[in-house]
Amino acid sequence: MAVNEVFQYSIISALMDGVASEGLPISELVSHGDHGLGTFRYMRGEMVMLDGKLYQMKSDNTVTPVDTSPASDAVAPFAMVTRFRPTVTFKAAFADKKALFAHLSSRFPDSRNFFLAIRIEGVFKGITVRTAAGQTRPGEGLMEVGRNQVSHTFEEPVRGYVIGFRSPEYTMGISVAGDHLHFITEDRTQGGHILSLGTDGDVEISAAQMSKWHVELPTNDPDFSKAKLEGDKEGIAAVEG
Amino acid sequence: MAVNEVFQYSIISALMDGVASEGLPISELVSHGDHGLGTFRYMRGEMVMLDGKLYQMKSDNTVTPVDTSPASDAVAPFAMVTRFRPTVTFKAAFADKKALFAHLSSRFPDSRNFFLAIRIEGVFKGITVRTAAGQTRPGEGLMEVGRNQVSHTFEEPVRGYVIGFRSPEYTMGISVAGDHLHFITEDRTQGGHILSLGTDGDVEISAAQMSKWHVELPTNDPDFSKAKLEGDKEGIAAVEG
Repeated sequence: MAVNEVFQYSIISALMDGVASEGLPISELVSHGDHGLGTFRYMRGEMVMLDGKLYQMKSDNTVTPVDTSPASDAVAPFAMVTRFRPTVTFKAAFADKKALFAHLSSRFPDSRNFFLAIRIEGVFKGITVRTAAGQTRPGEGLMEVGRNQVSHTFEEPVRGYVIGFRSPEYTMGISVAGDHLHFITEDRTQGGHILSLGTDGDVEISAAQMSKWHVELPTNDPDFSKAKLEGDKEGIAAVEG
Repeated sequence: MAVNEVFQYSIISALMDGVASEGLPISELVSHGDHGLGTFRYMRGEMVMLDGKLYQMKSDNTVTPVDTSPASDAVAPFAMVTRFRPTVTFKAAFADKKALFAHLSSRFPDSRNFFLAIRIEGVFKGITVRTAAGQTRPGEGLMEVGRNQVSHTFEEPVRGYVIGFRSPEYTMGISVAGDHLHFITEDRTQGGHILSLGTDGDVEISAAQMSKWHVELPTNDPDFSKAKLEGDKEGIAAVEG
């Protein structure tokens, strides 16, 4: 895949329907990009792909590097990645997601119907992340999984990386419309799915607008074939927004 | 692109919003497949791609082969194609779309969350097609364009080709969920978007299930960037179903 194209495995509605027992082998996932996010088998923890390295951030507050070699038995039931080559890099401070996306919209005018890949590096303040503990039974949906998530607010300023995407409104149910950002600390010991964030002064924001979107549907998973995939938009926004 | 992968240019909601002044050059479109359908600049007529050859079927009841060389000035504001290699071919008769899709569902069990590429060759009876006359002003939406469409029912049995796709429900607004089929007569003189069809005895039905979906968004069209793309699902079903 060329640079700055979106590769997505499965659709977010499948996670809503609890389809998470199988997934794309991680060694295949990393062949499609070096920047991205997703989840793991049984939705155990949050995935972040940072400069081609993959981490599993779990609800026990641990972060584990994931083997991306063909020998790895890790799979991603849902993931979104790109071979990221930022076209715009700038320094800015922001107090919340809304202010972050105002910065991005001014750098990428008329981008609302396209994807953005986003990477932010620097010191963050008041960042809150959640980590999914995972399914308590096979087939448990993302809404229920969300009820057992662990959230953590960094009380002190913390240096790290924000990795993710903004997806167009019309992709809701397939992708997560709007922003979808994961966080990992610089020392790779903590992180999760971002619920809220702000910065401690200027951080470095890199981004690229993307217009090519490749979706691969699970062919090895009877749960996907049988899922309703009706796309509970409000539910997705509540649990992934 | 490999065989039996879906390539789609733009999204159907963009046509709903009247985004049809620009499009993908036809010479690029044919590089992505040999089987498919779509429309042309200003939604003038219906596109069918049959064995790599492209035809424009217009509301004046003419069919014109379209130059697919780089010299061609034709563009597709919306199109969906594949490099079609049928995995299943069988003979059957059917009285209507519902019966056709019952045949396909029995050949492709558990395929509802995947795409199907469909090709049918034989003699059809009571087939009704419509051809869009095109926008009467730039930006006119597909619903309004639909009001000026010309429909034609073949009173006599007619030999020809049905070319198209079945797309999963969750793609509605991006693709046309459900069936989307175009027709062209064997002598390539008549055809259009299929509203209803049946066969005169057995026809040859070929199909392939597809799990890889590549969507390319228009980057050269300010109308796309500014469009609302809210995806009027009922409207799309009414005008494209």
